[in-house]
Amino acid sequence: MRNALISAVLLSSGVVLASSAAFADEGQWQPYQIPSIADKLSERGIKIPAKQLADLTQYPMNAVVGLGYCTASFVSPQGLVVTNHHCAYRAIQYNSKKEHNYIADGFLANSKNQEPSAGPNERLYITEAVTDVSKTITASLSQDPLIRYEEIQSNRKSLIKECESDDNYRCSVRSFHSGLEYYLIKQLIIRDVRLVYAPPMSVGAFGGDVDNYEYPRHSGDFTFLRAYVGKDGQPAAYSKDNVPFTPKSYLKINADGVKAGDGVFVAGYPGSTSRYRLTSELQFASDWLYPTLASRYQLRIDTIEAMGDADGEVEIKYAGTLASMANRMKKYNGLLDGFKATDITGIKQTREDDFLTWLAADNTYQTYQTQFDQLETLLDKKRINMQTRHYFENAQSSDLLSAANKLYRLAKEKTKPDSEREEGYQERDTKMFKARLKRIDSSFDITVDKTLWQQDLQAYMAQEHRVAALDAMLSGNDNLASLSDKLEGLYALTTLTDQDKRLAWMNASTTAFETSSDPFIRLAVALYDTNMAQEKEKKTLLGELSQARPGYMKAIIAYNKANDWPVYPDANGTLRITYGMVDGYQSRDALYKQPFTRLEGITAKHTGIEPFNAPKKVLDAIKEQRYGSHKVASVIEDPSSWICKLFSCLDKPEEFNSVPVNFLSSVDTTGGNSGSPVFNGNGELVGLNFDSTYEAITKDWFFNPTITRAVHVDIRYILWMMDEVDHADNLIEELDLVRN
Amino acid sequence: MRNALISAVLLSSGVVLASSAAFADEGQWQPYQIPSIADKLSERGIKIPAKQLADLTQYPMNAVVGLGYCTASFVSPQGLVVTNHHCAYRAIQYNSKKEHNYIADGFLANSKNQEPSAGPNERLYITEAVTDVSKTITASLSQDPLIRYEEIQSNRKSLIKECESDDNYRCSVRSFHSGLEYYLIKQLIIRDVRLVYAPPMSVGAFGGDVDNYEYPRHSGDFTFLRAYVGKDGQPAAYSKDNVPFTPKSYLKINADGVKAGDGVFVAGYPGSTSRYRLTSELQFASDWLYPTLASRYQLRIDTIEAMGDADGEVEIKYAGTLASMANRMKKYNGLLDGFKATDITGIKQTREDDFLTWLAADNTYQTYQTQFDQLETLLDKKRINMQTRHYFENAQSSDLLSAANKLYRLAKEKTKPDSEREEGYQERDTKMFKARLKRIDSSFDITVDKTLWQQDLQAYMAQEHRVAALDAMLSGNDNLASLSDKLEGLYALTTLTDQDKRLAWMNASTTAFETSSDPFIRLAVALYDTNMAQEKEKKTLLGELSQARPGYMKAIIAYNKANDWPVYPDANGTLRITYGMVDGYQSRDALYKQPFTRLEGITAKHTGIEPFNAPKKVLDAIKEQRYGSHKVASVIEDPSSWICKLFSCLDKPEEFNSVPVNFLSSVDTTGGNSGSPVFNGNGELVGLNFDSTYEAITKDWFFNPTITRAVHVDIRYILWMMDEVDHADNLIEELDLVRN
Repeated sequence: MRNALISAVLLSSGVVLASSAAFADEGQWQPYQIPSIADKLSERGIKIPAKQLADLTQYPMNAVVGLGYCTASFVSPQGLVVTNHHCAYRAIQYNSKKEHNYIADGFLANSKNQEPSAGPNERLYITEAVTDVSKTITASLSQDPLIRYEEIQSNRKSLIKECESDDNYRCSVRSFHSGLEYYLIKQLIIRDVRLVYAPPMSVGAFGGDVDNYEYPRHSGDFTFLRAYVGKDGQPAAYSKDNVPFTPKSYLKINADGVKAGDGVFVAGYPGSTSRYRLTSELQFASDWLYPTLASRYQLRIDTIEAMGDADGEVEIKYAGTLASMANRMKKYNGLLDGFKATDITGIKQTREDDFLTWLAADNTYQTYQTQFDQLETLLDKKRINMQTRHYFENAQSSDLLSAANKLYRLAKEKTKPDSEREEGYQERDTKMFKARLKRIDSSFDITVDKTLWQQDLQAYMAQEHRVAALDAMLSGNDNLASLSDKLEGLYALTTLTDQDKRLAWMNASTTAFETSSDPFIRLAVALYDTNMAQEKEKKTLLGELSQARPGYMKAIIAYNKANDWPVYPDANGTLRITYGMVDGYQSRDALYKQPFTRLEGITAKHTGIEPFNAPKKVLDAIKEQRYGSHKVASVIEDPSSWICKLFSCLDKPEEFNSVPVNFLSSVDTTGGNSGSPVFNGNGELVGLNFDSTYEAITKDWFFNPTITRAVHVDIRYILWMMDEVDHADNLIEELDLVRN
Repeated sequence: MRNALISAVLLSSGVVLASSAAFADEGQWQPYQIPSIADKLSERGIKIPAKQLADLTQYPMNAVVGLGYCTASFVSPQGLVVTNHHCAYRAIQYNSKKEHNYIADGFLANSKNQEPSAGPNERLYITEAVTDVSKTITASLSQDPLIRYEEIQSNRKSLIKECESDDNYRCSVRSFHSGLEYYLIKQLIIRDVRLVYAPPMSVGAFGGDVDNYEYPRHSGDFTFLRAYVGKDGQPAAYSKDNVPFTPKSYLKINADGVKAGDGVFVAGYPGSTSRYRLTSELQFASDWLYPTLASRYQLRIDTIEAMGDADGEVEIKYAGTLASMANRMKKYNGLLDGFKATDITGIKQTREDDFLTWLAADNTYQTYQTQFDQLETLLDKKRINMQTRHYFENAQSSDLLSAANKLYRLAKEKTKPDSEREEGYQERDTKMFKARLKRIDSSFDITVDKTLWQQDLQAYMAQEHRVAALDAMLSGNDNLASLSDKLEGLYALTTLTDQDKRLAWMNASTTAFETSSDPFIRLAVALYDTNMAQEKEKKTLLGELSQARPGYMKAIIAYNKANDWPVYPDANGTLRITYGMVDGYQSRDALYKQPFTRLEGITAKHTGIEPFNAPKKVLDAIKEQRYGSHKVASVIEDPSSWICKLFSCLDKPEEFNSVPVNFLSSVDTTGGNSGSPVFNGNGELVGLNFDSTYEAITKDWFFNPTITRAVHVDIRYILWMMDEVDHADNLIEELDLVRN
């Protein structure tokens, strides 16, 4: 009956782990905070000293790199960088031509001179310093909300300007804890990034949209890039003569990976979370915002798909748009399903009630009750504003109108000194502004743009919050046919579809706009005042919130600390560290998802039809069991341990007997953590973060330790691909491989 | 790190269990064989003496009942019977009227006088004796295959006739091990069956087609019936004055159910398996037969669905047909997916090769090599015949043509003495024959029948194996439009659509058929000779196989015994016993399915839309945690055991904390086992078998212990429904409830 007993343990241990996990693993920590949770890291078996981890100038944090939208890390002294395939997709696409389709076939440079540029816009950002500038930003701010808002912006901009005096740096000032703190982030910019090694899409995105946010997963979501600099070692734009960058350090790679129960940590740039938001904000998101966004999104997806089915060119042009819309749609569905599955609003409400009870009784913080009430009033106002503006904002969704709006705004901003201009319209933004204007062509089709815009206009016309300037344009078009004709006319008359003409507007005067006969420019001019008034309203509210929120945050932080709960700021695109354990989870009633997937799972999923079309070279290697040195006999701790003597691990030492492909851990991640290095307890690279599970999507609002798991590519799968499948010997030699 | 270690064990234990299970649990045993596997039962913790289990006149086997297509069991001294909801569906439907829809709302008789008849055709069969009649059947058979076939049939018929001299008994002679043995089965017939208690469809078939063959499952697939007899205690047709039947025994019910790892056994009437078939037969089924049947089936399903969408009446009429087709289609898909997932043909081929090697070396059996070769030759012939006849047989698929064929055959058979007539056309078959002819109307629509028939005729016309008599009918109809017109004409002229006229043909002479102008009758007459010739060919082949197969079976049985492998006959609708263990399984890479589902899983699946529309009374009871005495703290063996001291069972004694709904075990079942009682080791009822998992569908060909699991309704869910939801106190009082 021994096996029956194992089965019994197994049956309930999902729950056991869940409850034991309740104390742990939540938190996207600022590196400087790490020493404050040293005991928790050590409980998880993380041995690297907390102080070392907190230091951005030391290993391993100085090997962690941002891509702007993803995370990566240095893995060789010659500037080799590893990140996700989906993070490097643009670079692969940029280099794919008719004669060599790197997306379909993958790419491997056998020597450095075969490494092509990843594209002129690719960047690597290395965070070199994070400085608390809270005082500088918040000192002596006005009590007038709009002025207060402008002062904060102005303080931020001058700090950034000063910091960016060296062209090789990008700087930003980020708000933490909703304006309670501000940090200045200084990042070195690598501007010459090259493509080194990418597996085929059918490995890098095996399972595609179908498997997106799902587990069990079998994705080889990795790609190698390389940082290049000028001969002087300084960052430089792409040049043939550039040389590989020598990073301050690069990650050791542990070729033995991790096992179930091992402690791991992840460093990266999580984008945004809302964990400290009030219950009323969650309620609004769950009851109105997400359902409203999701239904519009679904309509747009359906529309583009139908038009793509009818027109191959549309299909190609909107493929990228659709893919990212599908991703976002799955996120919306995950949020809505998650809210249905777990009463997160109820849980948050209970916690908030407890907080308010504590607040009322606490001598130090009880005055914050007023600020909490003020905050709720402001949030009410915010909700009403959002609902009021929603349809009008969507009614400007045409790519051409949106471009016209931005161009006219640019002309307006240019009349001010650079430092006083709105963010996004300063000199430092010119290049990106131009790139965006150019990029329109690659994913734009008049008929699609018109159809989608018309849907938004109809939705706008069907509700009560109208704007006179827009109504004037729509007047007399209350029926479908005439609206369609009217829009047809706008598209026929505009020249904004012409890239050169569109770009030329970047240098046009406000008068040129105001006297233009281009219908989209005219509409942009007509809507300008309303848009500005709404923006002013928003800024005023932000100014008001910048007074109320920090007070609330101060109180909630004190409350959390009093309860010994983790206190870390919501994600805001800055460098964070999260820790956890390699672990499976209880996905649904009677359904347990185990922490490691195996190579054989690829073969089982393979149908030959995208996205389950594993390449023959991979299938053959699996079939022939060419595991090489990457084979893992067992993913349990130690087959000779006492526990295995009690159970039958020793009877079957080779249970797993394959190469691990993906694995789960309980680390706390979100979008932006893609490509993040996953470290073992010694700070050695054991995987790349690339996704989280469907059940965990609501973690942006509430971290539920029983179901929150991140999905990682196992380093052993990456090494196996390099070694047994693609024979990337030149790269393997560069790596600093260690074994247990 | 304790939890990490549990997690580790958990991770691999699916595999551990799989390999440990390899020795076990296969076998649908004839009761008389049970003493030969007494040690294996006892290893599984089954304590009831093997001798007792083998005795059909003793508890518990004398409480097991057949329904003809399902299994049931007596659970009270007053003839109360429990089976699956889907097995009693006809009875529930029969009693559902506009004013009380028992399908939708469920039904509970609060006293016996509220128990309605389950319908005039419902029967319960109690197997009273199983006698080995091999010698009687096979003594001095002719060497001529056709004569040999007829002799076997004739021997069977005379044994049956003798046995059925008492009207209260139904008898049959079944072939075991492909004609190596024959047994005469004698069953008492209960003809007055009544409906007692059925949950709503939304409980009894919660999850419907979507969850069919799936797990995790949450189905309350149970219904209570009652057996009635005449006042003299003898079986009788329905009469108000009948009294409840007193069974020889009735099952004790263990209200504490089972836990993971417990041994269980199941008694019932599995319909058909093909485990001893040759590799070439599996290959043919997997490569030609199933794909061919599946693609025709899918076409028919799509056609009926499309026609049902367009016509509500068609939808209603074909609802039952479609449901059973969907079930069969899922089975075909499961077979084809299973063959793809596991190379069963390869496994069987290896075993067959090993067998042949053994055969060549074995002194006693080596002469059977010749019989094996003969068998392969005959099977070749069988395959060719099947492929040749396939399209012609389908070309007679019209319900009206099929009825005409049978009616003319009846007239022909009636010219012979009763004992010489073909099975199905004897006096004893008249009632069933008539019932089937009547039943056509309830699921027949001319347009659907014609469309489906036309598809089959076109498939027939597109291939080479033609029959002149049918071609004559089709002549000049090589294009679609003219074929459709032609068929239109047949349906316009026939009177077989009229039930009375159709039934009248049961008494018509052959001459009446041969001079009829009804086009379907004429076609039946025209095709008769071909059909008879093909039947003769089939019978001849069966005669030949009846010589070759038993020899092969003798050798393979000797070989299996030499290897200490289980030897039991393929399922053939006779009473069998199978044993196993309550256990989860590794469903896919990294996906483990745990053995018990919980009430809360119903709420999680509930959408309000059929088939996930749990009734409010159930949802409310779950929400209010009204578990009553059916709550289970833990589904593991013993929370105070040594293993739990090592792990954290004791820290959390109430892990499960709900009522189990369904559970899995490794018993060996197939279609016909629906409704079978699931017993704990003491022979107490702990559940009802009702399905098996999708991965296990291929078990009809090959029993793979790592993935083969049967799905059972947990007795605790049944009792909870009776107790906490439906307050069926009158029934609970009748039951013999025991606790551990």
